[in-house]
Amino acid sequence: MSHAYAHVLTKFGEPLRDRKFPLPVPERGEILLRLEVSGVCGSDVHQWQGLDPRVPLPLILGHEGVGRVVATGGEVRDVQSAMVTPGDRLAFNRGVSCMACRTCLVLRQPALCPHRWVYGITRSCEHPPHLVGCYSTHVLLASNVQTLCLDEALSPVVAVTAGCSGATAAHCFEEVRPEFGSRVVIQGPGPIGAYCAAFAKASGAEVIVVVGGTPSRLEACLELGATHVINRRETDAAERLEEILELTGGEGADVVYEAAGVQEAVAEGLKWCRAGGAYVSCGVAEPQGGLEIDFFHDIARKNVRLQGIWVSDMRHLVEAVRLVEAQPQTFEKLVDGRFPFADAEKALQAVADREVGKAVLMHDDPTGGAK
Amino acid sequence: MSHAYAHVLTKFGEPLRDRKFPLPVPERGEILLRLEVSGVCGSDVHQWQGLDPRVPLPLILGHEGVGRVVATGGEVRDVQSAMVTPGDRLAFNRGVSCMACRTCLVLRQPALCPHRWVYGITRSCEHPPHLVGCYSTHVLLASNVQTLCLDEALSPVVAVTAGCSGATAAHCFEEVRPEFGSRVVIQGPGPIGAYCAAFAKASGAEVIVVVGGTPSRLEACLELGATHVINRRETDAAERLEEILELTGGEGADVVYEAAGVQEAVAEGLKWCRAGGAYVSCGVAEPQGGLEIDFFHDIARKNVRLQGIWVSDMRHLVEAVRLVEAQPQTFEKLVDGRFPFADAEKALQAVADREVGKAVLMHDDPTGGAK
Amino acid sequence: MSHAYAHVLTKFGEPLRDRKFPLPVPERGEILLRLEVSGVCGSDVHQWQGLDPRVPLPLILGHEGVGRVVATGGEVRDVQSAMVTPGDRLAFNRGVSCMACRTCLVLRQPALCPHRWVYGITRSCEHPPHLVGCYSTHVLLASNVQTLCLDEALSPVVAVTAGCSGATAAHCFEEVRPEFGSRVVIQGPGPIGAYCAAFAKASGAEVIVVVGGTPSRLEACLELGATHVINRRETDAAERLEEILELTGGEGADVVYEAAGVQEAVAEGLKWCRAGGAYVSCGVAEPQGGLEIDFFHDIARKNVRLQGIWVSDMRHLVEAVRLVEAQPQTFEKLVDGRFPFADAEKALQAVADREVGKAVLMHDDPTGGAK
Amino acid sequence: MSHAYAHVLTKFGEPLRDRKFPLPVPERGEILLRLEVSGVCGSDVHQWQGLDPRVPLPLILGHEGVGRVVATGGEVRDVQSAMVTPGDRLAFNRGVSCMACRTCLVLRQPALCPHRWVYGITRSCEHPPHLVGCYSTHVLLASNVQTLCLDEALSPVVAVTAGCSGATAAHCFEEVRPEFGSRVVIQGPGPIGAYCAAFAKASGAEVIVVVGGTPSRLEACLELGATHVINRRETDAAERLEEILELTGGEGADVVYEAAGVQEAVAEGLKWCRAGGAYVSCGVAEPQGGLEIDFFHDIARKNVRLQGIWVSDMRHLVEAVRLVEAQPQTFEKLVDGRFPFADAEKALQAVADREVGKAVLMHDDPTGGAK
Repeated sequence: MSHAYAHVLTKFGEPLRDRKFPLPVPERGEILLRLEVSGVCGSDVHQWQGLDPRVPLPLILGHEGVGRVVATGGEVRDVQSAMVTPGDRLAFNRGVSCMACRTCLVLRQPALCPHRWVYGITRSCEHPPHLVGCYSTHVLLASNVQTLCLDEALSPVVAVTAGCSGATAAHCFEEVRPEFGSRVVIQGPGPIGAYCAAFAKASGAEVIVVVGGTPSRLEACLELGATHVINRRETDAAERLEEILELTGGEGADVVYEAAGVQEAVAEGLKWCRAGGAYVSCGVAEPQGGLEIDFFHDIARKNVRLQGIWVSDMRHLVEAVRLVEAQPQTFEKLVDGRFPFADAEKALQAVADREVGKAVLMHDDPTGGAK
Repeated sequence: MSHAYAHVLTKFGEPLRDRKFPLPVPERGEILLRLEVSGVCGSDVHQWQGLDPRVPLPLILGHEGVGRVVATGGEVRDVQSAMVTPGDRLAFNRGVSCMACRTCLVLRQPALCPHRWVYGITRSCEHPPHLVGCYSTHVLLASNVQTLCLDEALSPVVAVTAGCSGATAAHCFEEVRPEFGSRVVIQGPGPIGAYCAAFAKASGAEVIVVVGGTPSRLEACLELGATHVINRRETDAAERLEEILELTGGEGADVVYEAAGVQEAVAEGLKWCRAGGAYVSCGVAEPQGGLEIDFFHDIARKNVRLQGIWVSDMRHLVEAVRLVEAQPQTFEKLVDGRFPFADAEKALQAVADREVGKAVLMHDDPTGGAK
Repeated sequence: MSHAYAHVLTKFGEPLRDRKFPLPVPERGEILLRLEVSGVCGSDVHQWQGLDPRVPLPLILGHEGVGRVVATGGEVRDVQSAMVTPGDRLAFNRGVSCMACRTCLVLRQPALCPHRWVYGITRSCEHPPHLVGCYSTHVLLASNVQTLCLDEALSPVVAVTAGCSGATAAHCFEEVRPEFGSRVVIQGPGPIGAYCAAFAKASGAEVIVVVGGTPSRLEACLELGATHVINRRETDAAERLEEILELTGGEGADVVYEAAGVQEAVAEGLKWCRAGGAYVSCGVAEPQGGLEIDFFHDIARKNVRLQGIWVSDMRHLVEAVRLVEAQPQTFEKLVDGRFPFADAEKALQAVADREVGKAVLMHDDPTGGAK
Repeated sequence: MSHAYAHVLTKFGEPLRDRKFPLPVPERGEILLRLEVSGVCGSDVHQWQGLDPRVPLPLILGHEGVGRVVATGGEVRDVQSAMVTPGDRLAFNRGVSCMACRTCLVLRQPALCPHRWVYGITRSCEHPPHLVGCYSTHVLLASNVQTLCLDEALSPVVAVTAGCSGATAAHCFEEVRPEFGSRVVIQGPGPIGAYCAAFAKASGAEVIVVVGGTPSRLEACLELGATHVINRRETDAAERLEEILELTGGEGADVVYEAAGVQEAVAEGLKWCRAGGAYVSCGVAEPQGGLEIDFFHDIARKNVRLQGIWVSDMRHLVEAVRLVEAQPQTFEKLVDGRFPFADAEKALQAVADREVGKAVLMHDDPTGGAK
């Protein structure tokens, strides 16, 4: 190929436009990547619809991608200090932090770096190097993008879920890691919730309850580590509370993880925490207005920690990849919607309609053109 | 004395009744204490008014007390393993946890023990040993009450503030301790807020802002460690936010501690936190209805930790006593209302009317009758 | 039965003497337990031989025991706040801490309580209540012994290993818990090492290497979570270092756990840690003279944490029981020496000779006489 | 100036040679700094003598420097995201980590980055850009050097001590931070020990004992936070142990910090730790052969944490600068040897002979030639 082809968002809520860009020659430290799989994230839908204030137009959507290296600008190394060479399969951290400011160096929270920019979300394709989103055959990784060479045995379809959903779940578990023998509840059986179930198991939790509305996704969570599931469509709030109390020795959960995406879940889930427990919320990704909580009973009197989680950093991506490497087949089941790259819009619509839990775009040339 | 005299709450909202009780002979492990000072806590007012559902009648109010040992049931040791002997001045942990359940032993959070009972709040004086509240000349400390012998040089007036306000502040700082060079904001310049200022200083915080409405209390906070104060009566919310941003390098506070007692403070104070910061609330001690927060902007997007704090345990009491020992004169200024023991009701009313920041009852016989 | 029968150590290094004691009636808070299984710990051998300075004579050896409740002194509750009733199967914390001193309450390290005493080690059977060791048909649990009622489905043979080996391993993992995806090495494939392998797996470690000399025990570790084993009898130090570096990406282990019991293991194992890693030692249970380490290269230059671990507390026991409940069959294999209660000395000798990894004494009446 | 002038080490143990280098024009992201003060560190002496295996020749010694910006390569920002402009006074992190590898991003320990290089220690001045050591009028800061603009009010003499001694002490306190009311002992009253005393005070420690041999330095520690000092020249080991036990309630220290530089201090200081305490060693900076410790009594039985500390990262530098800003006059007293830049060798010799505790080289043009 001499060009990259991308689906470009030019007007919110309207069809994406196909556009081609000249393939750049990587400068020092840069990497040109031929994507094998592009992930479609729930927040892509919000960006498409113009609900995310960070988005400039025109934009190549897509912050999730795994592909093969076409070329590098000189010697480049990944996070393992391995040389990155053409043909390597690569994952990368979608967010690019400065690694030089107080937030990155003193607070050591690069996910919150005020200078952070994000592939597929915050940079327009209007200007060079153009290829800064994953709904594209290629992306150009800047010299300070953090990368991880992947084992050939790991399917790129699985790896792509680790980069955003998996890493976000890992961030939750870095902030609040359950003790051995804990009782954990997870709200939302989508990709992040499923990763939470797997991380809870990898934390030695004893009881892992997932609450959600789609039986097939709850089923997948059981395979990944959940010990119990509750279908929220077949229960009311009082029944869920009762069931969770029963599963947690009458005390409530040690930790509740919210991956449901709607803030009403927060008000309900806080009631499931035991005294001294924690509630960790990573699913609320756009403004949803005011939320009423029962502060005295659900936070103060119970000495509860309510922890907001925003995105993730490279540590979390690496942890998520390590987690999926241990059981790739199970994680592959999370991806219930595979679309040809050409059908990006169908994929977006399927996610918008909640027809699929996790959609990916499959590029036609899995070798990445590099071999 | 052959009897103890107590002010007893027999009907909510009505005057306390004087009553006398026979002095008990301590059984094995028990301690009979002649109080020198009884503290009047803001929550005493709520209990008096019937707003605290834990309260049984008749009740001897008062969970704060420092006094001298009259007698012990055999050999008894304090938390320092020092022998407790008649004449010793003693502080004690107002809450009695079982030290045998999962919360105490596995979670190591005795403040949250489901079996915890509290002097002056949860046990009626109807039944023996009767003397389980501090609006009394004597209290009988059960064999599992945790005690600390005090240095003779430390005024009991100061020590009594450490037992509840100081210990609660210490609990906040155990959950979230500021890093060296942090920027901290404290809401409420009452006794807990003043202790928070002192603990923030003892944590190496660089900027310590106290927000409150009473100039004299703000002044006391400056002496204890605050670097700046903001009078909330002379500012509006936008001005306070602006001033706090200016004092925190435009980023917001690393930690905000709430000791204001009203939950509206929570909604405002969350906006003062920097991304990745923490908000620690210990002041909301009774139900105040629903609270609306801007969950996305103030918690999720900022990756903020909102930590509820409920009461305190013996570790916190010891830390607070250590803190006041370093500067007793300054802490003594926190006590702006000293009342004779007979005037308990006046003291309660003065606290209810917010005329005083911290009131204590002075017993007539400071030797405790033990020497 | 109207009497308890015990094997009593009356002279170091000599045969145990059989002795009978009247069965006590439990006073308030006490529990009389009919043992089903008594564990034989490696340190029993040291105590038998007079190498442990804490031991008074005459002594009923044995600090590991699981049995059934015969009677209680009034209402008694276990750590789960469950009522303890005759017939219940019970595990208990062998160490009795005061739960009242600075170490217990302020530092929250009851394992290090200076007033701690231990069943089967520090109290003579000379004086009432006599039954303070587990080489006996019965033990009398004092009112402040911490207990855990066990599920009927859990074999007492398995549960008894959790009380000492398992709890000690849990203590190691409380002090230093591996991060997700960590590379861990364990020295010693005995019971503690085997528990370490299981806890490492329950921590989400990716690489878990056990180094030891007995193939059958290494095999058991593989079943419990180890991913690799190294036979130290078939390798020299240079080969072990090389193999561990290879298994840890050339960096060294994130954490090394020592459960080998000889301090030479410490000097070797420190070399296996990566820069910034940790070395956790719980196996050295008696004085072994001076140990030479290469302080600059192995601690200072590598920024390594060397953590000593001494015994365990109730939290650890509960965690260990939760761990074995998840896979009791595998843990049962750790017990490779079952002896009739009468053959306590044979069991001791077998442990002394390292013929068995974990020995237990089986009491003849598994119902505990309580049903 | 059109040239930089430097003292160059060309042969170990021999006099430094004066050499001049053309002043480079900073490329993108680089900063040319005119030094105001160069620090002379104890490890400079080891490097001079050829005891540090990291050192290539020829070398411009000196990893401590504060100066004024001469020019920048385009727009450059410091750690506070402030624009760096000519004339600004700047401190910088002497170690340059890659911020891209597993150690930097996953373990978040950039001080241990395997790709880290250090000004004045690991890079020869043989090749461009030559100016990579602080015994020079100028240094060229690479684009990934981490910088901090300093307040004009802060003396560069004080600031230069924060960059190495202060940052190393801060690293110790990040790994092990004393709890409120702790009892702390510090070995060595040199610059690092003095910073440790100040950090201990800023941690709310109650008892802070410094042990050392030079009365004037012990005196300075008292001003910075120490509550007691012990002269090791006037005491033997038994007396020191007895005195420390007396000052720590008979229990031993909660934390001991080693800043003495000789590993024998480690063997002695471990005996001063209480059960469950910590020993933190940052002073042993070069190989000193084998060290014998009493592993059972001093580590295992006491459940002690022995923590090695290696160098520091940018977080620590910022914390140290914040600390000195609060009391610059007191910290200025640490610098007891000021030498003209021309007398670098005299300064080195004075440090080698332990005549001065902290030496600095004063450059003749304090404006840095930038104004």
